[in-house]
Amino acid sequence: MSIKIKVVLVEPLYEGNVGSVARAMKNFGLKDLVLVNPCKLEGAAKAMASHAKDILNKATIYETLNDALSDDSSIVVATTGIKTAKKDEHLRFPALSPKELKYKINGFCKNSSQITLMFGRENIGFTNDELKLCDLLVTIPTSQEYPIMNLSHAASILFYELSDTDIGNFVPADKFDKDLLIDHIVMLLTSINYPEHKFDKTCLMIRRIIGRANLTSREVQTLRGIIRNIQRKMRLL
Amino acid sequence: MSIKIKVVLVEPLYEGNVGSVARAMKNFGLKDLVLVNPCKLEGAAKAMASHAKDILNKATIYETLNDALSDDSSIVVATTGIKTAKKDEHLRFPALSPKELKYKINGFCKNSSQITLMFGRENIGFTNDELKLCDLLVTIPTSQEYPIMNLSHAASILFYELSDTDIGNFVPADKFDKDLLIDHIVMLLTSINYPEHKFDKTCLMIRRIIGRANLTSREVQTLRGIIRNIQRKMRLL
Repeated sequence: MSIKIKVVLVEPLYEGNVGSVARAMKNFGLKDLVLVNPCKLEGAAKAMASHAKDILNKATIYETLNDALSDDSSIVVATTGIKTAKKDEHLRFPALSPKELKYKINGFCKNSSQITLMFGRENIGFTNDELKLCDLLVTIPTSQEYPIMNLSHAASILFYELSDTDIGNFVPADKFDKDLLIDHIVMLLTSINYPEHKFDKTCLMIRRIIGRANLTSREVQTLRGIIRNIQRKMRLL
Repeated sequence: MSIKIKVVLVEPLYEGNVGSVARAMKNFGLKDLVLVNPCKLEGAAKAMASHAKDILNKATIYETLNDALSDDSSIVVATTGIKTAKKDEHLRFPALSPKELKYKINGFCKNSSQITLMFGRENIGFTNDELKLCDLLVTIPTSQEYPIMNLSHAASILFYELSDTDIGNFVPADKFDKDLLIDHIVMLLTSINYPEHKFDKTCLMIRRIIGRANLTSREVQTLRGIIRNIQRKMRLL
């Protein structure tokens, strides 16, 4: 996570949701939770937070959203499930998609920027006065039939989209290795007298398949081992 | 949603999670829920499903994952939270990120393709035998500190990421054809006395490569033709 993200829940109604959001925050490396006039947080909040009880315990609580936002946050983003506002409704329109929001904040400077990501009440979202406090709106594209998401689901998707955590353990084979594999296959095709009229087309097909398969270096070695085994067997027979 | 996505929950332990997944499915236009030997579904499942009780009620229930997968699904994707597997661990590696998965299935043809998206148990995920049944692995990039996500959060993120998948004109080979190819390769490995201690691991590796490569039906036929040529040559020599 390269940008500091503060999460603000405005008057959450269900403690389980608060715990769930805390868990999702920790899953994506976020720490800073702010609660505005929340419901009571007891057993269910802790149960849903699972290993993120620390985030729950350290949450800052304010009476009003105004108080919660009176700091140096550079960008205040409100999430909204409402997508059908008229064009002249400046309060709720236009909203960015999570991907658009990510693109927008991507260029922010790491050291000077903080995003405040606000989520409204489970039933009515934000009041108009609250929406006036935000710089950007974001909405998750959903089915028309049932657009209202669970609070922690919406939060998870935004945390996911805004975090740029890599998986980072996939090391694809380099071109040199893949070319050796392809040459090896071509050699094999030659040695089995693969029909000449299909030869070039088949070689191209194999190159394309290898391109698509995202082979690791180790997989290339194993495949070449198989071909060597075939060649040895053919020589022996 | 342009590609048909079937959601399979394997032995979910908490009914609230099943309901939550149903809700997230409906939020993203998915309908087809399959449960393998689930926990009892009572009040909490319905409460969390909210306006997606219809998906819960229509869910198909199977005794085993094998039964649940015995249909025409072209691509079986398992979600896994484990990201630290060693390079030589074919079972859990390499896993795609949700964005990579989306990119991979982007070109599939609407009419002939179905993705089966499997989620494991909340505590232990999938068994190794279950993982062997899948073509692709996907994992959500998370914080190292707390990588274990709530089931419905992980599901929401995948539904979100896959939901604006484009329709292409790429017709992937079906499971039957791919299985024939794999059997054919296994036969070839046997006939070249491929070392026994590497045999199973290599077979699994080949299944995964084939899963990742998005082979077309025609490519499967050509590859099988090559193997037939090799077998003929070996018999002649």
